[in-house]
Amino acid sequence: MNTIRQPLIPITDAGDDRVAEFRDIRERDLVGRQGLFIAEGRVVLRMLARSSHFTAQKILLLENRVTGMADVLSEFAADIPVMVCNADVMDSIAGFPMHRGVLAVGRAHAAPDFRKAVANLPEDALVLACNAISNHDNLGSLFRNAAAFSADLVCLDGQCCDPLYRKSIRVSVGAALTVPYVRGGDIGEMIDVLDNSGFDILALSPEGKVSILDIETRGRKALLVGTEGEGLPKSLMDRTGSVRIPQSSDFDSLNVATAAAIAMFCLKGRGDRVG
Amino acid sequence: MNTIRQPLIPITDAGDDRVAEFRDIRERDLVGRQGLFIAEGRVVLRMLARSSHFTAQKILLLENRVTGMADVLSEFAADIPVMVCNADVMDSIAGFPMHRGVLAVGRAHAAPDFRKAVANLPEDALVLACNAISNHDNLGSLFRNAAAFSADLVCLDGQCCDPLYRKSIRVSVGAALTVPYVRGGDIGEMIDVLDNSGFDILALSPEGKVSILDIETRGRKALLVGTEGEGLPKSLMDRTGSVRIPQSSDFDSLNVATAAAIAMFCLKGRGDRVG
Repeated sequence: MNTIRQPLIPITDAGDDRVAEFRDIRERDLVGRQGLFIAEGRVVLRMLARSSHFTAQKILLLENRVTGMADVLSEFAADIPVMVCNADVMDSIAGFPMHRGVLAVGRAHAAPDFRKAVANLPEDALVLACNAISNHDNLGSLFRNAAAFSADLVCLDGQCCDPLYRKSIRVSVGAALTVPYVRGGDIGEMIDVLDNSGFDILALSPEGKVSILDIETRGRKALLVGTEGEGLPKSLMDRTGSVRIPQSSDFDSLNVATAAAIAMFCLKGRGDRVG
Repeated sequence: MNTIRQPLIPITDAGDDRVAEFRDIRERDLVGRQGLFIAEGRVVLRMLARSSHFTAQKILLLENRVTGMADVLSEFAADIPVMVCNADVMDSIAGFPMHRGVLAVGRAHAAPDFRKAVANLPEDALVLACNAISNHDNLGSLFRNAAAFSADLVCLDGQCCDPLYRKSIRVSVGAALTVPYVRGGDIGEMIDVLDNSGFDILALSPEGKVSILDIETRGRKALLVGTEGEGLPKSLMDRTGSVRIPQSSDFDSLNVATAAAIAMFCLKGRGDRVG
């Protein structure tokens, strides 16, 4: 049984300034947060504690979750404020019924430089490059799948949504806090940098020219995925290699995150090099 | 340009009895519907029109969607009522902003008999057997992926949610209306029937004994998946073969629908037998 080192701070008033960051989180999810984000749930908090890219600022727990969270709290620094409240206060703070009762505010460290991040990748490396993924579920799932197949870096262009939105983090099961990523800029420029760094660019599309099974799995590979519906712009498809996943010709194609999962599984030697 | 054969019925009052089935669909989604279901969106309506298991009863369109739906309407019978309204009336009927503006009520035909459905499968067949999938997103995604890899039958035990809920159908991109399925009963009995019909039962789990890549792809295969979190009951795991997808040991594992997609991709000869 872990001892809880952090001082527990009882919160009895939803208007308390010390929980301001947690207020109305469902609404505030939709606005920019200056590097701050909300992490929720036991698994995600554990990944926040272990992350080297993010730091927890404060934690808010439902009183009946404290004992069960002792092992997770032991992984956080001893000076992180841990606030505790009952269900009524929690729901008033969050602005909706917050059954899980496990929340933290995290802060992102300085964003890594894209060129430097790419330059530092190993000779065998898998990058997942995302163009205009605007759906938080899809982006969260892409991170989850990137983690499952040990992708080395996720590149998000400026048209992608924020992986630190509450829902993205939740759907990623915390992988948005552990898989290294860079964000912003033009997808064409990102592709140029990857191309110049020796990456094979593989645009994933139902119309891809080569089956993903025919791609050599060693070396530097960048899997490029675009938003569902429109798919990748033709200008991008024309200047890259393109790959497809063999599937039924009757059907509308796989979800982007599912397709990426299968492609990453194949590119990681059908999963035998994911360690 | 297709001519619209169906008579168009203007609806100017959200209280009109002829649109009763479409009223407050978000709420009613959660209750049983006696074989009736709501289909929404252009792609799903096209699949409803082509389905041999389901029949459309009526269609409701936003007035500015009618022209663009002419090709889809041409696939429905000429005597299906097509009702048309403006955005205000549509939103009042549906009970929330209904931007897509393309809805239909469908009815399921008599449910197929499970034993008969299994007996009629070919010698090379893939069945997806689902235990206690209670999340509509996951169930919809499982159907979408079953369609992408041409699974022959989906078996849902009595603990699974209804694939005809609006959200399941939408997430399945209509695959819930095209992939044959049977529903209800005990998963153990389903497994017995499949086992007695010559199916290899492959329980998919992060703790599976055999890599999915080492499974012979010919013959009758039943992929068994369970709910996330708890996973498959140990009693089921003990009496079946179990398979795993090679993936990172650091991570919490893939979403059930994503894992099933990868497994079905592998079981269909890495997708080269999906026709």
